[in-house]
Amino acid sequence: MPTTVNAYIAPAADRPLEPTTIERRDLGPNDVSIDIAFAGICHSDIHTARDEWGGTRFPVVPGHEIAGTVAAVGDAVTRYAVGDRVGVGCFVDSCRECEPCRLGEEQYCERGNVGTYNAVGRDGTPTHGGYSTSIVVDENYVLRIPDGIALDEAAPLLCAGITLYSPLRHWGAGPGKKVAIVGLGGLGHVGVKIAHALGAEVTVLSQSLKKMEDGLRLGADHYHATGDPQTFRELRNTFDLILNTVSANLPIGRYLGMLALDGTLVELGLPEHPIDVPAGALIGKRRSFAGSMIGGIAQTQEMLDFCAEHGIGAEIEVISADRINEAYDRVVASDVRYRFVIDTSTL
Amino acid sequence: MPTTVNAYIAPAADRPLEPTTIERRDLGPNDVSIDIAFAGICHSDIHTARDEWGGTRFPVVPGHEIAGTVAAVGDAVTRYAVGDRVGVGCFVDSCRECEPCRLGEEQYCERGNVGTYNAVGRDGTPTHGGYSTSIVVDENYVLRIPDGIALDEAAPLLCAGITLYSPLRHWGAGPGKKVAIVGLGGLGHVGVKIAHALGAEVTVLSQSLKKMEDGLRLGADHYHATGDPQTFRELRNTFDLILNTVSANLPIGRYLGMLALDGTLVELGLPEHPIDVPAGALIGKRRSFAGSMIGGIAQTQEMLDFCAEHGIGAEIEVISADRINEAYDRVVASDVRYRFVIDTSTL
Repeated sequence: MPTTVNAYIAPAADRPLEPTTIERRDLGPNDVSIDIAFAGICHSDIHTARDEWGGTRFPVVPGHEIAGTVAAVGDAVTRYAVGDRVGVGCFVDSCRECEPCRLGEEQYCERGNVGTYNAVGRDGTPTHGGYSTSIVVDENYVLRIPDGIALDEAAPLLCAGITLYSPLRHWGAGPGKKVAIVGLGGLGHVGVKIAHALGAEVTVLSQSLKKMEDGLRLGADHYHATGDPQTFRELRNTFDLILNTVSANLPIGRYLGMLALDGTLVELGLPEHPIDVPAGALIGKRRSFAGSMIGGIAQTQEMLDFCAEHGIGAEIEVISADRINEAYDRVVASDVRYRFVIDTSTL
Repeated sequence: MPTTVNAYIAPAADRPLEPTTIERRDLGPNDVSIDIAFAGICHSDIHTARDEWGGTRFPVVPGHEIAGTVAAVGDAVTRYAVGDRVGVGCFVDSCRECEPCRLGEEQYCERGNVGTYNAVGRDGTPTHGGYSTSIVVDENYVLRIPDGIALDEAAPLLCAGITLYSPLRHWGAGPGKKVAIVGLGGLGHVGVKIAHALGAEVTVLSQSLKKMEDGLRLGADHYHATGDPQTFRELRNTFDLILNTVSANLPIGRYLGMLALDGTLVELGLPEHPIDVPAGALIGKRRSFAGSMIGGIAQTQEMLDFCAEHGIGAEIEVISADRINEAYDRVVASDVRYRFVIDTSTL
């Protein structure tokens, strides 16, 4: 019999989120039931709740940065036991058969993975996310949160953390490499910490120098304002890797110009309009313009273990559920350092 | 004392090329004097002669696909001897000190390499290219043409050949890899031959099926018309590498959609307008959009040796000098299979 649990739900694009109850499915043999302790607020939650990307299936419970403890396990579960500290990220299932799935890159599942919210699960029912007190997830899509990280600081790693960790590893960030992070927000601030821990020389490229002190404290070696045209001249041909966390349309040719020979600029956000790329900026230094989306389950686990080992958590502001709508407005206004996390005991 | 040699020169953007004489510098200690036998006609020659990219220094002798034999060597020359079969490509010097130069990637010289024509040499005089009977070049920028390739078929390899070979090697074309070549022209036809010889599964993407028979004969395994929208659906998520030899602006998002997970589309031409890249096409499969420009001296030599070993030359139409202007019009109209080569004995 399904279980009824408290949640905060988005009823329609033009209405605030509100408290409600939802049902979680019966525990299947491979399922883990998780008591959620904390859920991060990702900008994607807001885009979905406000239907800014189109295609939102209302009503929907957002939240794909989930941290909690195991409350119960199905008969066939082997990896988790009651009381384990666990997390759930952006997807809760995938086809498990296509090449990306077999390679452990389930985020790129060819049939489309099953989103933690705003999707339809294998059982045909809509998925609901982390703004709730409990969730049931197949154990293969559950992550272990090592003891070294507090659950509230771990939650944002499940999306923001892996979104940065995956491209940093894929494109070889490490000692001797110059890495720039564009934007010091929910994604960027975790990227600075991870890139620094990987041993790279880290530069923050932010619109102004307003958050410079934070950036340096988080591990950046350099901090430059992109509002100053001199930045683009001074840093010409400099970086091996630039990760762009800003989803507004930037003058990307100028950013490409800061890449060294064979450098790569990776787009992590989804700007509204196509991006104008001047071919000369690529051809003249064999540069690449690439994209990356979260990470696979195995790599997400690797990221959590890495973060625990290096004492990395997100910088957060924990809020009670009744402040979710206010928090949404503050995220849109970039007024958060650096991630809101909902204390789900207040739901 | 400088030597006077016959040449075909572009006197101004709006005037046809015409016969003239130019002077070649005295043989320096590191110089090789080359009796040019053949010079390919590259589309860049036309862009320059007609000042379509701006910045042409008139008058100029085009030609950077040069094949001939060594006529004389300077006192300090160690690599070449009189009678050797040699070639010259797109540049005749570079700073030799910057990181790309030290890495043997002189094409990306940070101070700008010295173009074979339309540039200024270290001695302060304008450089003139291959539409002439003789050229003097520092031995470090001269290539050896192996006996296995006829000089006329070798000439286009010095630009078209290396432009394709370098990205094919850089992005790992070989057995088990699916490679698409967009456009079956001067560049593309050599790309098909080389990619096939490297062991890749090769697909030609051409506007129509007009040249299909040629494509398959040159080594393509598949041939599709991009004029047919079905092509983009059928080949979705297929290629590891797409090399785009077409310099007109294409709907690049649709081409990116044909890349498999982690695939790369490499731009080899320089379209007039910035290219509209939908970020989703990159992010959804961790794809890359990159650029590449000719190749370094060492890799150009490697390419020539590879081509000789595999019996690869360009498919050419040899013309006399008095047909250069007609050939230009035919290149612009894509009416050549696949490269015009000037017999410089007719200059």
